[in-house]
Amino acid sequence: MKLEEAIQQKIDSKTKPPGSLGRLEELALKIASVQKTLEPEIVNPVLLVFAADHGLTEEKISPYPKEVTAQMVGNFLKGGAAINVFCRQNGLELKVIDAGVDFDFEPSENLIIKKIRRGTSNMLKGPAMTIEECTEAMKRGADIIEEINAMGCNIVAFGEMGIGNTSSAALLMHKLCHYPLDLCVGRGTGLDDHGLNLKLKILKRVAEKHNSSMSSGEILSTFGGFEIAMMTGAMLKARELNMIMLIDGFIVTSALLAAHNMENNICSNCIFCHESNEQGHHLMLDYLKGRPLLKLGMCLGEGTGAAIALPLIKAAVNFLNEMASFESAGISNKL
Amino acid sequence: MKLEEAIQQKIDSKTKPPGSLGRLEELALKIASVQKTLEPEIVNPVLLVFAADHGLTEEKISPYPKEVTAQMVGNFLKGGAAINVFCRQNGLELKVIDAGVDFDFEPSENLIIKKIRRGTSNMLKGPAMTIEECTEAMKRGADIIEEINAMGCNIVAFGEMGIGNTSSAALLMHKLCHYPLDLCVGRGTGLDDHGLNLKLKILKRVAEKHNSSMSSGEILSTFGGFEIAMMTGAMLKARELNMIMLIDGFIVTSALLAAHNMENNICSNCIFCHESNEQGHHLMLDYLKGRPLLKLGMCLGEGTGAAIALPLIKAAVNFLNEMASFESAGISNKL
Repeated sequence: MKLEEAIQQKIDSKTKPPGSLGRLEELALKIASVQKTLEPEIVNPVLLVFAADHGLTEEKISPYPKEVTAQMVGNFLKGGAAINVFCRQNGLELKVIDAGVDFDFEPSENLIIKKIRRGTSNMLKGPAMTIEECTEAMKRGADIIEEINAMGCNIVAFGEMGIGNTSSAALLMHKLCHYPLDLCVGRGTGLDDHGLNLKLKILKRVAEKHNSSMSSGEILSTFGGFEIAMMTGAMLKARELNMIMLIDGFIVTSALLAAHNMENNICSNCIFCHESNEQGHHLMLDYLKGRPLLKLGMCLGEGTGAAIALPLIKAAVNFLNEMASFESAGISNKL
Repeated sequence: MKLEEAIQQKIDSKTKPPGSLGRLEELALKIASVQKTLEPEIVNPVLLVFAADHGLTEEKISPYPKEVTAQMVGNFLKGGAAINVFCRQNGLELKVIDAGVDFDFEPSENLIIKKIRRGTSNMLKGPAMTIEECTEAMKRGADIIEEINAMGCNIVAFGEMGIGNTSSAALLMHKLCHYPLDLCVGRGTGLDDHGLNLKLKILKRVAEKHNSSMSSGEILSTFGGFEIAMMTGAMLKARELNMIMLIDGFIVTSALLAAHNMENNICSNCIFCHESNEQGHHLMLDYLKGRPLLKLGMCLGEGTGAAIALPLIKAAVNFLNEMASFESAGISNKL
């Protein structure tokens, strides 16, 4: 008997009508299949928030000043942000990565400094990163995954912070999935109609400026951000190490789009946690054939959707490991 | 300033774009409004699983033998059912109520014996309960709520077990909401097409047999079950004591339909946790204007949808209490 069949048989032996745990049964099958076991485990879950600044903020594509990136990193380190609250509640270890924030942080326990540069270049004038910077960002992301995996972590959640990064994500979506740009561009942290139109105009100019045929690596370096490229590298390494990845939000998913272009089977290791309210995320998920667990109208980033979804993932693993079977509980099965 | 405005102002002061926590913000507003405070709390959450047998099972309206009700209660008491796993994981105290199971249980720590009778009467032959039995069931349900509330519990989740009880729930929905019966009847624990047709035929005969104009109390006693009536009484008391109620699933929601007919504002205290895969639940929720938090294709009952939703409710309360404000964290607001 193949392993997947054996897992399904174990699921069906549990004291419940077949299929009645719905998507939790699918999750249990997926996690056990990835981990190649009938007794999957979630060990030392870590949530990584990658932060960086974006040169394109010069063009006023966000309603918030770019200083907020560094200020929010400070908030993460002091424990006052939404992601801190949800990680504490649900037992995720939170690590914040300075991938390229325009501020020099003091060393801090939960801060990992992997800064490439103090923010990308303005894409309206040239590529956001050089190929070398992008490659280095990916490598540093992979290094972080190796480190947490060596500490026993087998499940990693991704989050991000970077004023302006929905612009990068929208352009990556446009270039990697070939959706029309106006379907990819959304309100981000809360642009009004006027701001949204301006953002769309600027991103159209960026897309037209860099219009040659490019590899996915070139697309990532031209339109991405340091936090996005670092996540892409981290995801590829997490796939290589066969970890479970919790995918959340528009920007995190844009990093996965790039990773997916480089490793087609990466989604076998991914759980899509929450469908963001940001326009465009729904289509990104369609493209990746990802079905989100939650749809709560959130669009905060930071990995908040992943952190609040973790208990559902634990529930899937726990029912598989802990529920009695019809046989062990002496319960009559269907007539 | 009104309390609701003050709560909304507190939500908007947090370090996140306005509205970006989506439904969690709505939940926070609701819970704080019910508790009349800027610092809501979830104290000693209890999940009550009400179990009872149904005389109509003589007509083969379920694919499982009715003995499964008692066997599953045994499973709950031994800790092997899905609801045990999810309550353990998410910190709910589980209490099982024998509302009318056709089996005499030994006393057990987590069992509350409130048995009215060893199963309702066959509705095809007469009312499921007498008015007196129904009233007594409601009273005993109210007593349980008074007891757990006196122990400090301010949030109660409802679950149920009773082979045959989707038939009662479908008839209650039909009679209380006036939806056509075929929209109310579903596959329950997994009927095939043949079984579903048979169930629909039998329930049509039951509906026609008891076709006079009735009060909601009469509808509940004619078509309900002991577990359902006990939940209805419990819900009315929980509303009176201003507790938060977690509503899950087709049968629990049918008990709420009856309670809603008796106290129109009861839904102010209710959080709808999961939209069941059972046909009919969607329309029930529409009728009550209830928007479920989760939609995971589950249809197990036991309160499983409520137990797995609790972390989302905690997340709503926790962000309101624990997140920093723009001011306290020194973060720049919108330009």
